[in-house]
Amino acid sequence: MVTTTRHQIHTVGQGDVRDITAEIESTVSSSRLLSGIAVAAVVGSTAAVTTIEFEPGAVADFTRLFEQLAPRAGDYKHHEQWGDDNGSSHVRAALLGPSLSVPFNDAKLMLGTWQQIVLVEFDTRSRIREIVVQLVGE
Amino acid sequence: MVTTTRHQIHTVGQGDVRDITAEIESTVSSSRLLSGIAVAAVVGSTAAVTTIEFEPGAVADFTRLFEQLAPRAGDYKHHEQWGDDNGSSHVRAALLGPSLSVPFNDAKLMLGTWQQIVLVEFDTRSRIREIVVQLVGE
Amino acid sequence: MVTTTRHQIHTVGQGDVRDITAEIESTVSSSRLLSGIAVAAVVGSTAAVTTIEFEPGAVADFTRLFEQLAPRAGDYKHHEQWGDDNGSSHVRAALLGPSLSVPFNDAKLMLGTWQQIVLVEFDTRSRIREIVVQLVGE
Repeated sequence: MVTTTRHQIHTVGQGDVRDITAEIESTVSSSRLLSGIAVAAVVGSTAAVTTIEFEPGAVADFTRLFEQLAPRAGDYKHHEQWGDDNGSSHVRAALLGPSLSVPFNDAKLMLGTWQQIVLVEFDTRSRIREIVVQLVGE
Repeated sequence: MVTTTRHQIHTVGQGDVRDITAEIESTVSSSRLLSGIAVAAVVGSTAAVTTIEFEPGAVADFTRLFEQLAPRAGDYKHHEQWGDDNGSSHVRAALLGPSLSVPFNDAKLMLGTWQQIVLVEFDTRSRIREIVVQLVGE
Repeated sequence: MVTTTRHQIHTVGQGDVRDITAEIESTVSSSRLLSGIAVAAVVGSTAAVTTIEFEPGAVADFTRLFEQLAPRAGDYKHHEQWGDDNGSSHVRAALLGPSLSVPFNDAKLMLGTWQQIVLVEFDTRSRIREIVVQLVGE
């Protein structure tokens, strides 16, 4: 059995990291599936999904890492194409990846206590993000 | 229901990034599955799969990022083992990851308009890559 | 059909990379599933799962890359929260990701000969890690 659920998340631009664990958890618990795989995927090429301990310090450290890896103010060939300013957003998102697979059992996500699912906004402007939660299981 | 499909992609070495969205999309549309998860996985340890806006500028920026993270001409202990020259390929591929999960619905991949699935060749020589597309759904 | 299997792996702290291919392979071969997707996920926010050629040189290169990206001795805001010393562990794990999806067919993982599944311990102390292997298939 498969269920498809869409969630919309408003973000305020690069550096916005949102805890979406509750959305994914409620998708699982309100389905009739007990066991399987939940795939959380963000639609678009300037955001990503991963897990982290959702605590302001760790989140700030994580955001800083990406600024070091691909500085927002750097030179990007992508900027020459459309006059965009989000070259850093594209390479960061492609590096981190748009989707995450999490097992669930007894209708609960199998995560650690200090492990939250996060949407990482890399774009340079505010966005309304669509998160697709695909459940496959029984 | 599960379907397994293999695609072969010829690549020309490090820095070759191939848009394989059409291959994955056709795998989904030609299956009898309407809804589920598509896993695109590259066999081997010197290539990876992710999504990016497949535009020459963004792709060049992405390639440059990996050259900064793990320079091809750097010193790698892997080179001491077999006389290989692809230490950068191994660490880049392990960082980015060999597989990607994408939800599909109505027999279509749930991707953004500017979001393509890419095979990222990191090896230092040309390769014939096998991409496995595994569909699980109904 | 879905099967859920848990494996415990003892690790000895940051830089410990464990080949867990045999555990995942035996989970697949001892299930009654022939074809599907195996998701290997580590519970917790300071470890990750990926594939690499499991050879001491490549593993050492990979470990060094993470020390360059997020040095253990760096300044982390996470340290201010609880007096922890594992800020590097959190950002490394969030970057690499907690789970990996691998297709299987004929009850065998579809991996390359030189491609092993590894648990990457990023925490600064020894841990007993729980790896969940979720199989969805037929």
